[in-house]
Parts: sequence; C-alpha cells; structure tokens
Amino acid sequence: MTNSETIGAPLPHYAVILTVVPGDDLDGYREMCQHLVAKAKTHPGFLGIEMAESDIGIVVSYWESIDAIRIWSADSFHQAAKHEAKQRWYKSFRTRICKVELNY
Amino acid sequence: MTNSETIGAPLPHYAVILTVVPGDDLDGYREMCQHLVAKAKTHPGFLGIEMAESDIGIVVSYWESIDAIRIWSADSFHQAAKHEAKQRWYKSFRTRICKVELNY
Repeated sequence: MTNSETIGAPLPHYAVILTVVPGDDLDGYREMCQHLVAKAKTHPGFLGIEMAESDIGIVVSYWESIDAIRIWSADSFHQAAKHEAKQRWYKSFRTRICKVELNY
Repeated sequence: MTNSETIGAPLPHYAVILTVVPGDDLDGYREMCQHLVAKAKTHPGFLGIEMAESDIGIVVSYWESIDAIRIWSADSFHQAAKHEAKQRWYKSFRTRICKVELNY
C-alpha cells in the first residue's frame, strides 16, 4: 500500500471516498476486500486505491471519469460485495463522489 | 470518530484528502494531531474530519469552500504542524483537494 498511486494522473480526475463504521464480526471481510480491489484494478479508468482502518475504515479509490465510476458501481461482483458488506460487516457507511482538482 | 460528519452539508463542498506514509518514530505525533483537529474545528467553514490509520494514514477534512481551505492552510499553527510533520513523522505524504459532488 502506498499513498502515491495517482502521481501524474491528469486532472481533474475523480475520487470515491468510502467511510465505514465496521461491525463486530468481520469474518470474511478482508478476503472480500482483496477480491474487490483486484477486480477494480482490471476496470477501465481505474487509477489507484488507498485504504486505512482503525476506529473507522476509509477507502479512497481514484478514477479517470464519472463514467468509469458508474461502470464500476454497476459491476455485478461489486454490487454483490456491497450488498453483503451492508448486511454483514458495516454498522454504517458513507460514500462521497469527488472531483479531484489538485493533487500534490 | 464517526463517518457521518457532513450529513446535511450543502453540496458542493470540499474535501482535503491527506494520505501519509508514517515514519518509524511517531513520538508526539498523536498529540499534534489532536491539537490540530481541535484548532481546525474552530475555523470558519470547517464541516468535519475523518481519520483512519494502518499501513498508511488517511485524513479527510471537509470544508464549505476552497476559500475556507486556503485560510486554514495559511493558519500559522497549521503551517508549523505541517512543517514538523514533514521533518519528523512522515516518510511521504500526498494532498488532494476535491470538490464533493455527491454525499450519500
């Protein structure tokens, strides 16, 4: 994990900030995350991902365009993973779609 | 720490995503963070902050406007803290200034 995956990516690009309050039982959660990240990396327009977790989890994924985010959101594996996460692992979660205007 | 500090904040607003690769000696780092967050909360236009830390640290602060971010960036306490962080605590860091277009 680095914090510099989007160095050199043209601006503007887009960030999806997912913040999560995890539940108590995280059995299977990390495996799902690994699969999901591997899948995201194969999607057109994917630029990078950064994750950290302590009291809350924060996942920021970076994309070339809003269209790339829309296509990824509609991916059936991604949708199934989100559904399972909401049911099993997340107490709460919040998503922000952002236009990255500066990156330094 | 919650993940819902900006529920109800008008759109668009702005997010500063700071990602950090921490160094080995973090003596004094957490105290500085606490002071910095307390100070940020007193600044006009501050909406909320979310933080998580594992291999990397991610801090996302939310602001009403780019001007509010500029004023906070120029705050002398903030500048001194950034300088110290770069010198003492961070192996590397990266800042993204983003316009939050959706929040759900």
